[in-house]
Amino acid sequence: MSAATATEAAAAAAAAAAAAAEGQGIWRIDADRLWDRLMALARIGATPGGGVNRQALSAEEIASWHAMIDWALSAGLEPSTDAAGNLFIALPGADRDAPPVLAGSHLDSQPGGGRFDGVYGVVAALEVLTTLAARGVRPPVDIVCVAWMNEEGSRFAPGMMGSETFAGVRSLQAVREVRDADGIRVADALDALHAAFPSLRRRPLGFPVAAYVEAHIEQGPLLEAQERVIGVVTGIQGKKTFDVVIDGERGHAGTLAMADRRDALAAFARIATALHAEIGGHDDAVKFTIGRLQVEPNAPSVVPERVTLRIDLRHPDNAVLDHLGTRLVELCGTLAAPCQASVTPLVDAPSNGFDAALQRAIAEAAERIGQPHMPILSAAGHDARHLAPLCPSAMIFIPCRDGVSHAEHEWAEPAHVVAGANVLLRVLLPYARAGLGDSP
Amino acid sequence: MSAATATEAAAAAAAAAAAAAEGQGIWRIDADRLWDRLMALARIGATPGGGVNRQALSAEEIASWHAMIDWALSAGLEPSTDAAGNLFIALPGADRDAPPVLAGSHLDSQPGGGRFDGVYGVVAALEVLTTLAARGVRPPVDIVCVAWMNEEGSRFAPGMMGSETFAGVRSLQAVREVRDADGIRVADALDALHAAFPSLRRRPLGFPVAAYVEAHIEQGPLLEAQERVIGVVTGIQGKKTFDVVIDGERGHAGTLAMADRRDALAAFARIATALHAEIGGHDDAVKFTIGRLQVEPNAPSVVPERVTLRIDLRHPDNAVLDHLGTRLVELCGTLAAPCQASVTPLVDAPSNGFDAALQRAIAEAAERIGQPHMPILSAAGHDARHLAPLCPSAMIFIPCRDGVSHAEHEWAEPAHVVAGANVLLRVLLPYARAGLGDSP
Repeated sequence: MSAATATEAAAAAAAAAAAAAEGQGIWRIDADRLWDRLMALARIGATPGGGVNRQALSAEEIASWHAMIDWALSAGLEPSTDAAGNLFIALPGADRDAPPVLAGSHLDSQPGGGRFDGVYGVVAALEVLTTLAARGVRPPVDIVCVAWMNEEGSRFAPGMMGSETFAGVRSLQAVREVRDADGIRVADALDALHAAFPSLRRRPLGFPVAAYVEAHIEQGPLLEAQERVIGVVTGIQGKKTFDVVIDGERGHAGTLAMADRRDALAAFARIATALHAEIGGHDDAVKFTIGRLQVEPNAPSVVPERVTLRIDLRHPDNAVLDHLGTRLVELCGTLAAPCQASVTPLVDAPSNGFDAALQRAIAEAAERIGQPHMPILSAAGHDARHLAPLCPSAMIFIPCRDGVSHAEHEWAEPAHVVAGANVLLRVLLPYARAGLGDSP
Repeated sequence: MSAATATEAAAAAAAAAAAAAEGQGIWRIDADRLWDRLMALARIGATPGGGVNRQALSAEEIASWHAMIDWALSAGLEPSTDAAGNLFIALPGADRDAPPVLAGSHLDSQPGGGRFDGVYGVVAALEVLTTLAARGVRPPVDIVCVAWMNEEGSRFAPGMMGSETFAGVRSLQAVREVRDADGIRVADALDALHAAFPSLRRRPLGFPVAAYVEAHIEQGPLLEAQERVIGVVTGIQGKKTFDVVIDGERGHAGTLAMADRRDALAAFARIATALHAEIGGHDDAVKFTIGRLQVEPNAPSVVPERVTLRIDLRHPDNAVLDHLGTRLVELCGTLAAPCQASVTPLVDAPSNGFDAALQRAIAEAAERIGQPHMPILSAAGHDARHLAPLCPSAMIFIPCRDGVSHAEHEWAEPAHVVAGANVLLRVLLPYARAGLGDSP
């Protein structure tokens, strides 16, 4: 049998299975299994406050891989990894060499993170593949669940390491040299991860992808406020981050005259107040945050000699984002005197728009299962940002309570969790029986 | 022999020894021994940058006690301690029960401190006692070198624990409950210190003192600017410290609208800018410092939910100090919105003046050895602040290069170090031969 013939045969078989399933009304995922698996993963790295601490390349993330791989193998799916520590779980297609369709998100969490951010998109994708496999669907090309390495960037900064390395935005070599607060290199943590799964097949780093769909909680209040269950994500707002170092001079708090001081923390206060007013107050769409700050020597009776901070700036309009970024650097420079400020740009990710056809498919799927939906711009960054330049990409949002994420009490309603996964199933279904012309 | 007769006989012997020494022109300390001991102690906790990290009740401080006690015993002096971890080294007097004369300072340093702050006053006092002992002087009452526990307060905050507990300003029980950043209690560190010296005699905590003299580097630029070698310290400027906690709410840096944020670090920036302008800019004499600050959760993409800071406020005029302290609390309260700020006063030490007769004695001693001197107000706090209410007290300052202290490159000229110790010797000499009427 030739490859083409095999593909045709597989497609025919898939179409038959799909038609049978459609006829029986069973094109839906297993709601209980999906929820149980989410809660099972929430126990890995569970925090006393009901959240999750499962940081990138940690023992907890390795434990979550074991769970994912066990579930994959029991469903007849094929797990694999790559040099960047991304986890792939494939529903094998007829043509194993053709670019696969990917769906997923990330398994790592913030230190005090919740039970849904990231892991939801991975478990939903696994659930879709498990459902398709259980129905005997063999798609024309591989459909692959993916968990990208280190999306959060809370242990190894900045984040999105797996998707950026996959997309060629950053080099593997550069990523491997990043260290966490304990001085541990990504290289060593990554090698330890791979050592924990010695028989796992290794994919090449970066391969052609036919399409990418990521389900995620919104991390904002808009769906809840509009009483919509499905967000059709139109794009991701642009983001820039900066490291700022303010250098002053240390001195004795009781003896050094105020006029002679070069107090780095006083300079920070001036700079931050001005940035919050001008950058943070620019318009209703801007997001300006100084989330991390360190003071040296940080002693009660010593005038601070150095302040190090990280700035996170986001805006949906790339022209505005660029303008604010330039202005931010200027303000740091002019307001630091008599100290000195140096600004290092880190992330520089412009706004992007997702694939129009996939957005339509998400909206239609939501209607098909009777869920209210709306278009929405993602204010948070996601791995999908880095897949969008490579292939048609899209995201599905579901609400989270009070818009809260990156917090232990982050919560999504089980009904919404299930609805999002069913939309993902229906968006992926055409790829599972491509070329057959029928719709789910 | 009755106690009174013993005292008279001892005084006569001391007077004879003193007169003989004076006749031979040898009323001076051993300059090389003093410097060598300072440099020997600087090797205990030495930092790569030439400074010292010898924090309170640390292994390094215990090592410095071993050195001090070895030197004391080899000079026939008597070491002892008390329940607060103060170290005493006595030149025994004829009447062991009479209130002794104390001279000293502290052995602990800042984490990145220098080779003179504190340790100079202790080693200078030891050098004076060693000189007196070597000349066969037996004073009427004990003359005692003291090293007060934890003056700096960098490990266990706030500092001056030993002198405050000795003076009854704080209870030993309260001090023992203070914890360092690793959660170690003073109680446990103190018990470990005492366990390292099982045979050391224990004095009662707090006993009557006849007089107290403390030699110290200036920690400011005034002596250097005026080209004076000896500062006759008139008093210590008043000091207040405050702990401030600013409570906001955490949120996602990319999704939470600016208008809905309660950003604790943004509130800090506003508060600090206003405090620096109004409090720090009040007049030329005020010193206003925010030296320590912590941000929670301190993650790049999370709006800060809590900022904790320590404020250090000093002024020589007690009325102004009280006014600024009140105003500071008001400003924190009104500027924190939409966050909340709570202010806890810690240290509240008004300005004090030192004993006039001792100030005259210091000036006369400086003239006698041909060293230029000037009156000076101490901008930094010292243990002498807590002895002043108990007995006639005074301080001798020597210059430090560029006014720098609490820094690894803190430096004092050997000639100034020796001059200060010779002034201390001459100020203590009348106590070594009290009632005999002759002058050094």
